[in-house]
Amino acid sequence: MSASHARLRIVLVSPRNPLNIGAAARAISNFGFSDLRLVNPYEVAFREARSAVHAKQLLTDAREYPTLAGAVADCGLVVGTTAIGNRALEHPLRRLEYGAKLIARRLVTAPVALVFGSEKFGLSNEDLSHCHWLMRIPTRDEHSSMNLGQAVAVCLYEIVRSPRAATAKPEARRPANAEELDRLTTLLGEALERSGYVHKRVEGSTVLKLRRLIRRMNLNEHDADVWLGILRQILWKLSHGE
Amino acid sequence: MSASHARLRIVLVSPRNPLNIGAAARAISNFGFSDLRLVNPYEVAFREARSAVHAKQLLTDAREYPTLAGAVADCGLVVGTTAIGNRALEHPLRRLEYGAKLIARRLVTAPVALVFGSEKFGLSNEDLSHCHWLMRIPTRDEHSSMNLGQAVAVCLYEIVRSPRAATAKPEARRPANAEELDRLTTLLGEALERSGYVHKRVEGSTVLKLRRLIRRMNLNEHDADVWLGILRQILWKLSHGE
Repeated sequence: MSASHARLRIVLVSPRNPLNIGAAARAISNFGFSDLRLVNPYEVAFREARSAVHAKQLLTDAREYPTLAGAVADCGLVVGTTAIGNRALEHPLRRLEYGAKLIARRLVTAPVALVFGSEKFGLSNEDLSHCHWLMRIPTRDEHSSMNLGQAVAVCLYEIVRSPRAATAKPEARRPANAEELDRLTTLLGEALERSGYVHKRVEGSTVLKLRRLIRRMNLNEHDADVWLGILRQILWKLSHGE
Repeated sequence: MSASHARLRIVLVSPRNPLNIGAAARAISNFGFSDLRLVNPYEVAFREARSAVHAKQLLTDAREYPTLAGAVADCGLVVGTTAIGNRALEHPLRRLEYGAKLIARRLVTAPVALVFGSEKFGLSNEDLSHCHWLMRIPTRDEHSSMNLGQAVAVCLYEIVRSPRAATAKPEARRPANAEELDRLTTLLGEALERSGYVHKRVEGSTVLKLRRLIRRMNLNEHDADVWLGILRQILWKLSHGE
């Protein structure tokens, strides 16, 4: 875990459902964070969540606070999450894509709290007054309210998301080169001829068609090899079957 | 819902847990998709999920298939999801950030299936053979396996994620201008003098300090107004209390 990641406090205010607490803990662990804080949780829910299979240590280490003020006391930035898109808010409201970038930047130097309200009521006005600004996941207006565990997962994903990975293609096998593709075209032409798919020696225009057909396959070196083997085998069978 | 969104099929293979089916449905609705397909689901789980509070219509419309081949038959691209980072795979493996971009591009012209394996076993080799390529959520290696409902939410979020929103600042109030800030500095200087915080007429170096102090507040026009009002009131009280 990076030093930056260790500085993020994920704060759940009055969570009621043990499954949501457990799911939040699992996402925190999945994305490499560790500091879960619970404000005034429903005791039974917290106890049950602690007996969950996943992220056991993280839940054991999770701290309880009587008030949100106490839970965020050491934080240089406090960000509330909300499903509300249009209601007039006293706070600046940022979309997750942009807000997460600000959070990641601030985490380099200071602890940041990311605050989630209770499943039923969200964050109260009293809770909101402790926040510097609010963040909204871009759900659709007609159904904007997300499940708590899923909202935590999506927010943390955006914080660790790599902008470079969004444009960098994965390492690929070397594409087959022209020589390999030509050999393939020749073998395929022979196979078509011997199998009777074309009736005389493959003509010029057919060769061009085959060449384009093969190139549209976008073969890598490995798959070109496999296809060469297949065609050789077919040709052998066609010769010996004659 | 956009035509593109309507073309995405979210396919759950052999899901066992009604809460996960319900959570997947809720995320599908949150992010503006609609087509949920279940391959060989555990019957009890599917029935229980259908009685859930959220995304009722979507679950009623969800179709069941005996095989993955049947569920993806109408799709021009089939993408499997996996938690496996390093194991040698027969398929190209793309990070979610990049893969989601390819999916969004393909959805413009053709139906795409996004396939999730069962909670316990993921996708089998037989399932994987129906996929064009695989996609991985960038979880950490030591705890890579995500909860099914959360994995669905994160993948769909990335597909609807707006790259422009990641750099566009939200609309802000106009920042206070220099005239307003100077008026504020003057009033604050007077207040400090009259209150006895500084003992003689505020000196040049103090004025500079106050000016910088005020500018570090990054006030917008509204808050500058509020502060002007506060200081005027304090000055009035200081004068009348003398």
